[in-house]
Amino acid sequence: MSSGHAEDTRPPWRRRLHTIIFEADTPAGLAFDEALLLAIVLSVAVVVLASIDSVMSAWGPWLIAAEWLFTVLFTVEYALRLLAVSKPAAYARSFFGVVDLLSVIPTWLGLFIAGAESLLVVRLLRMVRIFRVFKLANHLQEGRLIVAALQRSARKITVFMTAVLALITILGAMMYVVEGPAYGFTSIPIGMYWAAVTITTVGYGDISPGTPLGRVVAMAAMLTGYAILAVPTGIVSVEIARGEREREVTTQACPACGCEGHGTDARYCYACGAALHADG
Amino acid sequence: MSSGHAEDTRPPWRRRLHTIIFEADTPAGLAFDEALLLAIVLSVAVVVLASIDSVMSAWGPWLIAAEWLFTVLFTVEYALRLLAVSKPAAYARSFFGVVDLLSVIPTWLGLFIAGAESLLVVRLLRMVRIFRVFKLANHLQEGRLIVAALQRSARKITVFMTAVLALITILGAMMYVVEGPAYGFTSIPIGMYWAAVTITTVGYGDISPGTPLGRVVAMAAMLTGYAILAVPTGIVSVEIARGEREREVTTQACPACGCEGHGTDARYCYACGAALHADG
Amino acid sequence: MSSGHAEDTRPPWRRRLHTIIFEADTPAGLAFDEALLLAIVLSVAVVVLASIDSVMSAWGPWLIAAEWLFTVLFTVEYALRLLAVSKPAAYARSFFGVVDLLSVIPTWLGLFIAGAESLLVVRLLRMVRIFRVFKLANHLQEGRLIVAALQRSARKITVFMTAVLALITILGAMMYVVEGPAYGFTSIPIGMYWAAVTITTVGYGDISPGTPLGRVVAMAAMLTGYAILAVPTGIVSVEIARGEREREVTTQACPACGCEGHGTDARYCYACGAALHADG
Amino acid sequence: MSSGHAEDTRPPWRRRLHTIIFEADTPAGLAFDEALLLAIVLSVAVVVLASIDSVMSAWGPWLIAAEWLFTVLFTVEYALRLLAVSKPAAYARSFFGVVDLLSVIPTWLGLFIAGAESLLVVRLLRMVRIFRVFKLANHLQEGRLIVAALQRSARKITVFMTAVLALITILGAMMYVVEGPAYGFTSIPIGMYWAAVTITTVGYGDISPGTPLGRVVAMAAMLTGYAILAVPTGIVSVEIARGEREREVTTQACPACGCEGHGTDARYCYACGAALHADG
Repeated sequence: MSSGHAEDTRPPWRRRLHTIIFEADTPAGLAFDEALLLAIVLSVAVVVLASIDSVMSAWGPWLIAAEWLFTVLFTVEYALRLLAVSKPAAYARSFFGVVDLLSVIPTWLGLFIAGAESLLVVRLLRMVRIFRVFKLANHLQEGRLIVAALQRSARKITVFMTAVLALITILGAMMYVVEGPAYGFTSIPIGMYWAAVTITTVGYGDISPGTPLGRVVAMAAMLTGYAILAVPTGIVSVEIARGEREREVTTQACPACGCEGHGTDARYCYACGAALHADG
Repeated sequence: MSSGHAEDTRPPWRRRLHTIIFEADTPAGLAFDEALLLAIVLSVAVVVLASIDSVMSAWGPWLIAAEWLFTVLFTVEYALRLLAVSKPAAYARSFFGVVDLLSVIPTWLGLFIAGAESLLVVRLLRMVRIFRVFKLANHLQEGRLIVAALQRSARKITVFMTAVLALITILGAMMYVVEGPAYGFTSIPIGMYWAAVTITTVGYGDISPGTPLGRVVAMAAMLTGYAILAVPTGIVSVEIARGEREREVTTQACPACGCEGHGTDARYCYACGAALHADG
Repeated sequence: MSSGHAEDTRPPWRRRLHTIIFEADTPAGLAFDEALLLAIVLSVAVVVLASIDSVMSAWGPWLIAAEWLFTVLFTVEYALRLLAVSKPAAYARSFFGVVDLLSVIPTWLGLFIAGAESLLVVRLLRMVRIFRVFKLANHLQEGRLIVAALQRSARKITVFMTAVLALITILGAMMYVVEGPAYGFTSIPIGMYWAAVTITTVGYGDISPGTPLGRVVAMAAMLTGYAILAVPTGIVSVEIARGEREREVTTQACPACGCEGHGTDARYCYACGAALHADG
Repeated sequence: MSSGHAEDTRPPWRRRLHTIIFEADTPAGLAFDEALLLAIVLSVAVVVLASIDSVMSAWGPWLIAAEWLFTVLFTVEYALRLLAVSKPAAYARSFFGVVDLLSVIPTWLGLFIAGAESLLVVRLLRMVRIFRVFKLANHLQEGRLIVAALQRSARKITVFMTAVLALITILGAMMYVVEGPAYGFTSIPIGMYWAAVTITTVGYGDISPGTPLGRVVAMAAMLTGYAILAVPTGIVSVEIARGEREREVTTQACPACGCEGHGTDARYCYACGAALHADG
């Protein structure tokens, strides 16, 4: 039936390709996604190993060969994706379209542009490919619950982070004035770096207060960080609890009054007392 | 009508000024608040950048000019605020009145009182201006929820912080006795600084125990800090959950008995059984 | 009336003394407790200040005089407490009886036993006096709620801490084998100290892994600590939430069926539907 | 009666042995488990003490004798366990069967294979014995609640840990490119080690960023770690709360409709309205 949507003019083999590459509901699609996940993890492992000098001097040629193998594989995969979708331009501009392209471009560019720095950047950009793992994670109910809780918390956490950044700026400026260059606080940005290290309870110790007043300010900063650490935890806890609660509620509406939110074992509407359908 | 309240004798243009400067409900008021927020962030960025020696030597005159531009702008803003309110003296003594004044005074004072130290203090005090951001944050429901949860938790967190301070004092005195000056614990306040660094899990490592007994005390302190870290988190989580729950309750009162707190899907009063209005 | 209990043979002035010293319900009792709290905080401040060499050399005689003043005051207070209670021996053996005695004994002992070490211990023991603050904190509902939540969590936290100690022992032994003395892991107890520093996310950095395998073990330890940090927080959060919920429930029992746990605004029994008393 | 199950052909004394060694419900079984727990803790203490050079040189022969005493005891215990169970081969292949064997083998192997390294591994493997403590912990309701909450959270925490590992890999590669070998970031694995130390807020400070851009990346990593630390805490809190809630529900089924999950104070079935038994 030619209904309202734009007609899909892709030939059957392209639709079949789409089912395999973009979906994980068929056996072939699931096998493709699992093979891709393995390839991503292995290619990242190659990049990580190639950064170690002793490993590179011993296994250099093998690692470079593996790097090229994965680059060719992912380039073929990118081409197939462009073929499979009905609107290639839209895919190419989407988030994963850009990431898929970025995960192969640097190695190809390395052929024409030489130099150690560019090669390093190449390796860094290829790391982004691991984000594709999240596509698979998204298929797990657990991943969806966590992502949904974080999305619902996003605005609260943004407001919270703004307050934390303001606090870091004020503390950084205070320590710059109180401690000064003698103890490593050579500028306000350095003080802000120290404040972030302290507030988040990381505490490297590369910069630490040396004057009595500076230590009092540091203690106040630590205890403040200790107390406000509770805020994001509380926000996310409440959102996860809500996500769990909503999962325990059926999507069935009351046949008499139409209200929703009945528990999975409810037989009578809590609002009007009418009997609910047996297999809700 | 001349009712009970003190009559507002401000001319219309001052009322209009008040709507623009102090409120964010009209388009003009919102535009003013957004411009102010941008100016605050930029002026803080100027102070932060001016503290870096290499930046100051390259862009010094531009940064000083920007500093004076913002100081003049904020001084004009302060004068307009005094004009807009019906009781200028009350505003000048309020928290934000003092902060608004402190954010401009130091630069002006710098004209008469020279010296590196005073200039540093100037920069520090100007940082306080960023607190004004919270006024805007307050307009967001998310900011209100977090602030309300923290306010309801305030007394519990005060009691908790008193107990933590007592624990820090005892641990600091113990480490002063156990470790002594050989490992940097030269006084009880230094020991208290170490205890705060440890209990809050910051752990700079600038002072750390060196004797076996001191390390046992440190391990006990760490595990205690680990366990009591749970207390503020639990307090704030519960308060945020309550804030969320209360938001899910309608503001509708029962037409029969007047009681409040009905759920958003309730149709009958939980206290007297009377039917509630349909569009609660 | 001579009822079942052991008869109270104290004269009226001793009962009055008991009301003032041990209770905080009368104006005199509250004033006594507040003065005592101030004296404790001041006496601790004297001990803390006396440990700083520069302060001691400048204000030594004054600090020693203040120390003796507080010791005499607290000795008189201890004698009055023994007088006020009906069973002095029971009080002397109670927790606060022992603490009250320990807070004065060291200074008196300092008259007969000389030496720097003993004086240090004296100062340490006097710190314990600050625990008396908790007696006052106990009068605040907030303090009671936190203490009750921690008491209900005590068994769960004990089980959790045992598991954490086992984990610390295993990790300490692993790092002793993996890293060895070359990187500071000279014995299993040192390895356990490192494991505690790492698991609790304190991370001094005085001992840190240097071999690749040791760093992999350390990363596993950090991520484990990150995940299990959630356990005490979850336990305490749930207990505080329960404490809050129970506070919202009246102690009134249903006059018809005797069941308890009615909300503060309930007018009808949730179990049998009988009307509750109006002023619950 | 010879029912469907495989007949138990063990003589009565082996069944009695099984009751004592594997169960803790009889007085003899409880005494055995408590003695075993004490022996495990003492044997671990011996291994820990033997790793300290000064202790070993002073008490060496006593520690070696104690080590052999515990090894013989645990070997006899292992033989008795093999005797007590009806299927010795199944026990020997079970998790605790392997752990029980591993806890004695190394000392025996030490007779034939000499060398410091092997002795160290011996001590490490014997540490695993402490896991047996969890068998006892399992008998406590508190331990069961925590373990059940962690088991229900397992899949969510696995998904979360995968995301954290991906984040650590990306951050490690970024810092390797941004900071380079000059500040100790000599390879991507070293960068990943730094990222784990930072994200988990451990912060040793053995490797810390030195360039301005590196410090900005580090601040972003810290604040991210601060925010996502909330996720496992939220997950576990919700699961513990659910475990507590389920414990507050009676195991009584409705006599009319058979549904379960009635609150401890419910008198009427929430599903069909039938009266529940009085003593639920």
